[in-house]
Amino acid sequence: MKINNKPYRAIWLKADEQRIVQIIDQRFLPHKLDIFDLKTLADSVFAIREMQVRGAPLIGATAAYGIYLALLEASQNIDLEEYIQQAAAQLMATRPTAVNLQWALERQLKAVATAATLAEKTAIALQTAQDICEEDVEICRKIGAYGLPLIEAISERKKGEAVHILTHCNAGWIATVDWGTATSPIYQAYNKGIDVHVWVDETRPRNQGARLTAWELGEHGVPHTVIVDNVGGHLMQHGMVDLCIVGTDRTTYTGDVANKIGTYLKALAAKDNDIPFYVALPSTTIDWKMCDGLAEIPIEERRAEEVTHLQGLHENELKKVLLTPPNSPAANYSFDVTPARLVTALITERGVCAASEEGIKGLFPEKTRQEI
Amino acid sequence: MKINNKPYRAIWLKADEQRIVQIIDQRFLPHKLDIFDLKTLADSVFAIREMQVRGAPLIGATAAYGIYLALLEASQNIDLEEYIQQAAAQLMATRPTAVNLQWALERQLKAVATAATLAEKTAIALQTAQDICEEDVEICRKIGAYGLPLIEAISERKKGEAVHILTHCNAGWIATVDWGTATSPIYQAYNKGIDVHVWVDETRPRNQGARLTAWELGEHGVPHTVIVDNVGGHLMQHGMVDLCIVGTDRTTYTGDVANKIGTYLKALAAKDNDIPFYVALPSTTIDWKMCDGLAEIPIEERRAEEVTHLQGLHENELKKVLLTPPNSPAANYSFDVTPARLVTALITERGVCAASEEGIKGLFPEKTRQEI
Repeated sequence: MKINNKPYRAIWLKADEQRIVQIIDQRFLPHKLDIFDLKTLADSVFAIREMQVRGAPLIGATAAYGIYLALLEASQNIDLEEYIQQAAAQLMATRPTAVNLQWALERQLKAVATAATLAEKTAIALQTAQDICEEDVEICRKIGAYGLPLIEAISERKKGEAVHILTHCNAGWIATVDWGTATSPIYQAYNKGIDVHVWVDETRPRNQGARLTAWELGEHGVPHTVIVDNVGGHLMQHGMVDLCIVGTDRTTYTGDVANKIGTYLKALAAKDNDIPFYVALPSTTIDWKMCDGLAEIPIEERRAEEVTHLQGLHENELKKVLLTPPNSPAANYSFDVTPARLVTALITERGVCAASEEGIKGLFPEKTRQEI
Repeated sequence: MKINNKPYRAIWLKADEQRIVQIIDQRFLPHKLDIFDLKTLADSVFAIREMQVRGAPLIGATAAYGIYLALLEASQNIDLEEYIQQAAAQLMATRPTAVNLQWALERQLKAVATAATLAEKTAIALQTAQDICEEDVEICRKIGAYGLPLIEAISERKKGEAVHILTHCNAGWIATVDWGTATSPIYQAYNKGIDVHVWVDETRPRNQGARLTAWELGEHGVPHTVIVDNVGGHLMQHGMVDLCIVGTDRTTYTGDVANKIGTYLKALAAKDNDIPFYVALPSTTIDWKMCDGLAEIPIEERRAEEVTHLQGLHENELKKVLLTPPNSPAANYSFDVTPARLVTALITERGVCAASEEGIKGLFPEKTRQEI
């Protein structure tokens, strides 16, 4: 999508320098657009762990490129298999909740295992990372194409009046390679001239909504309003939300959805007010081993400092301020699980389906539940 | 309650200077304990509007003192009745949602109307403001006494293991004159040696939880953990919350509760996980004219800047930082309405009752629904 009228992707190989992968350092958005060079495995691990990149698909793409960068660093006289396994383990340990990370790494490891030499493995790793990116763009485009009619139908019912869409966190194009997941139907509706307006949940503690979703919607021209996470229920009670669309970091094959902390609360409010609650996802976020999201999906706990401190712009400089009493402890759970019963439908690259084992199997008949 | 081992109230007449009312300027907590002098009506209006003081009972007390300060300023040759009415109108216009404001002003106006001269009216206004404060302390103490057994019962059921209580916003002693409403049962349980732990909702946009509730619990020694507003649902899903207690700014005679924005979302989560959701209130917050909270309670909208900017401590100085893209609009609804069906019970100064017209009438039989 566009930033200041120039087309971007969220991750790309540097022009004329194939040994460098470039990303937008999302830690400084919306205040500063900083392009960051990934040159090593350590850079890739740092980028994922410190959330220079975030969002399940983009994490997967970054991890795939991470193996490529690790191979660029490898010396000739090592146990290459062990080296690659250790690189993958480092990348895997960065973010425990995102299933794409595992998926991308497994695909990359399988691909490089087909080659014998370091040079061949490196070439294959680059191609695989690029393939993962291109496929992600196409998947997100399709999610948008399948989600678009849901927005169109409401627009028609409202005789062209603005369709109000609530979203939580950032499942936008900068959480993927392009288009986004939750935002893809929104961008496609906007591009088609449908009157849409997005309620952007701030999404504490890291404010991915207020910082990233608001920024990318604004750069593309989509009307939006930032709200604190507490507001959505009130808006839904008063008919000010027509539908919700969120992303997901991991989805069980039964339709339970692990997404950014607070998603569950919005799903409850949507249910209580008869508002459709959609989850947009590439099928790579489906965990075919998991049946019960609440019991099985590991929930990442992050540093308390993300709760006690918040960074923003003060006199044109980024400053981090303390919000809490210095002696008050804080807890920082990053995701919650929205049970399938609260999800109206899943929007995937193969179409829209019920958030249930039957619904998911209907679109992905070749997949089988994997017994643990 | 105590601050740094010294007993305080949230509002008091200055020692040896009865023409000055003192408050804690809550805008700078927890970073700075600033005592502020109210000397005029304008000071009182400012204090309520700019939220130097907040919380329904404290707003009422401040408004009552505001009339006293207005009378101290009055010159002899004016239409005193009109002057008092205009002073009350200014105070009334500061915060539209809090019903205590109206209650305290009506009581104060009625009291001063019994006197003829400016001097007599002034003396009565002072006495009435002081009475309102003393009565509030006693009401809050009783709310705690009636709420305590609810915590004790859970503590016994858990064989003395910590009782985990979630609260939203600040219905603490600094939202009242002393004890608080939602916090009063907690302080009394803690004082009695019951093992309690409080999950403190940050409460964006103004962070009354992270700033005020965490601060006052910490000063009193009550174990607590600050969480962002998105987290409560996750905690409840995982058995980490035993009960919720919140305050209210206005309660219909049918038991609907207008409280700080986001309360509704926590009530939904409590219901979904079979966790008791209590609302602690002085009966002065009951609006005997209102039947349907969602339809009738006016919801204050405040400045977008409270959403887009946040103040905190940076290198020992209070700094306000910008969180959002400069061109992104923000909306700031301050309260939401939790329907009675989601409230387990009300904790009042006369006991615990169902959140229903029958329940409330059972405790307040002398009150009659006021037809509009």
